Amino acid sequence: MKLLAFSNGDGLGLGVRTDAGVIDVVAAAAALGGEGVPRSIDEAVAGGAAARAALDGLVGRAGGRRGAWLRDEAALELGPCVGTPGKIVCVGLNYRKHAEESNLPIPQTPVLFSKFSNTIAAANEPVPLPKSGTEYDYEVELGVVIGRRAWNVPEDEALDHVFGYCTANDVSCRDLQTRTSQWLLGKTLDKSLPIGPDLVTADEVGDPQRYALRTWHNGVLRQDSTTADMIFPVREIVAYISNYFPLEPGDVIITGTPAGVIMGLPEKNWLKPGDEVTVEVEGLGKLTNRMAAG
Amino acid sequence: MKLLAFSNGDGLGLGVRTDAGVIDVVAAAAALGGEGVPRSIDEAVAGGAAARAALDGLVGRAGGRRGAWLRDEAALELGPCVGTPGKIVCVGLNYRKHAEESNLPIPQTPVLFSKFSNTIAAANEPVPLPKSGTEYDYEVELGVVIGRRAWNVPEDEALDHVFGYCTANDVSCRDLQTRTSQWLLGKTLDKSLPIGPDLVTADEVGDPQRYALRTWHNGVLRQDSTTADMIFPVREIVAYISNYFPLEPGDVIITGTPAGVIMGLPEKNWLKPGDEVTVEVEGLGKLTNRMAAG
Repeated sequence: MKLLAFSNGDGLGLGVRTDAGVIDVVAAAAALGGEGVPRSIDEAVAGGAAARAALDGLVGRAGGRRGAWLRDEAALELGPCVGTPGKIVCVGLNYRKHAEESNLPIPQTPVLFSKFSNTIAAANEPVPLPKSGTEYDYEVELGVVIGRRAWNVPEDEALDHVFGYCTANDVSCRDLQTRTSQWLLGKTLDKSLPIGPDLVTADEVGDPQRYALRTWHNGVLRQDSTTADMIFPVREIVAYISNYFPLEPGDVIITGTPAGVIMGLPEKNWLKPGDEVTVEVEGLGKLTNRMAAG
Repeated sequence: MKLLAFSNGDGLGLGVRTDAGVIDVVAAAAALGGEGVPRSIDEAVAGGAAARAALDGLVGRAGGRRGAWLRDEAALELGPCVGTPGKIVCVGLNYRKHAEESNLPIPQTPVLFSKFSNTIAAANEPVPLPKSGTEYDYEVELGVVIGRRAWNVPEDEALDHVFGYCTANDVSCRDLQTRTSQWLLGKTLDKSLPIGPDLVTADEVGDPQRYALRTWHNGVLRQDSTTADMIFPVREIVAYISNYFPLEPGDVIITGTPAGVIMGLPEKNWLKPGDEVTVEVEGLGKLTNRMAAG
């Protein structure tokens, strides 16, 4: 199932993408009945199997019929496909060639850092580039949203704790990232984590290590790799983290970026206001944002 | 005013420390009337000047009288003196001698990293030391709680955005902290940020750069310095951060630790289960926690 959030005049409502259009879940539940149906991404994630069953039932009832609950995506103002995560855990240098282009050794264990939730942004939302930094860069990443508490879970059970997956762009300001030894400052600028538009449930994604991921900077393809090349695959990342601190429903992990970032290119055409960046994880959808003056 | 949180059978209620004892704010408001009185630390912080005025009024009415609302601190189960902060921003290497004992250069700008909110712990609460790490260390720090949104604020206005101050212990696992270039893993273990017991409002603290801070490990004095020795004082930290990302009410900044951590001692007697650590920032109170098996 492909979930998304959109502005429904009453905050961000829940949508389900279907071939016929986006089902406005709140409107469909009002028209067709929908006890226990989640009304937001957060409720869908927190509600577990019961929320999913209610949603499946509603989509089944709505699916074969046309109604006012069916919306045209082009007319929707999208929201981020995650709520306000308690944790955004980032994995650095998780693709071999990106570690090489960064002139950093291949890590022996996952390199973990964080962004704060002020970074969450929606598809099509402008990303401000403040004048306090200069070297702005893109990073396509596979985003992972936790569905069930993960604490000391073994690798072979780790993916059972994942609610779903999404496309994310870990916009980074290199001069701020490397000003001190700790990367946080260059990673947590406002709106520097566009994410979505879809949150695709784990059952639909299956094995997360078989998807292409790409970035276009002003239409030019710059990153083109596959999640098969991750040094630490998702199951290993989730199990590793859960051995040190608990992951809770709604927590987000972004799993690193492949080669092709501006930092690694011979000519450093850093992102500037007006630039358009599209990132895509195959099967999860394209995410486009225009850069803006900060 | 000295605020604290304690278990009142209905979650964590708000207390105000006075010479006569701790005023149970919820009980006092029920007995004496208290429109607009905050019922928790979060409400006190979020409520701004109106919440403070209501609290001042209640304390005035309760102060001269004995009633069931007056509690003996020794009988209270304390909670952390902060709620669930959206951000916990940590400043590394912010005392000259600590940077030296860490064999790291004196930073030219604040070194920022983070802990997640799973780290928040109360006074007297056991701190688990998981077997996944070995080199456990204490760090006394001055904690700063934001009261008013800070976004691009100049230094001379920065302290106006602070709600209050508290004692904190940034428990760190050095082998995990230095396993990769990024410190997060060794900084965000569960319950590794005991904080409190009191949140002392900014008006009572005045200049935050004039307080002694100390740590006792099993009764032996190990850290003994003063906030006057910070490389970047609180006003500079708040202004600096706010130039890059916004600080919101309830966000916590821990401002670094002085020399005397175990990492810097000739003999590395790392914290182990059963050890008792007391940290103190003068005027803000002592914070004691026993280490436990993780």
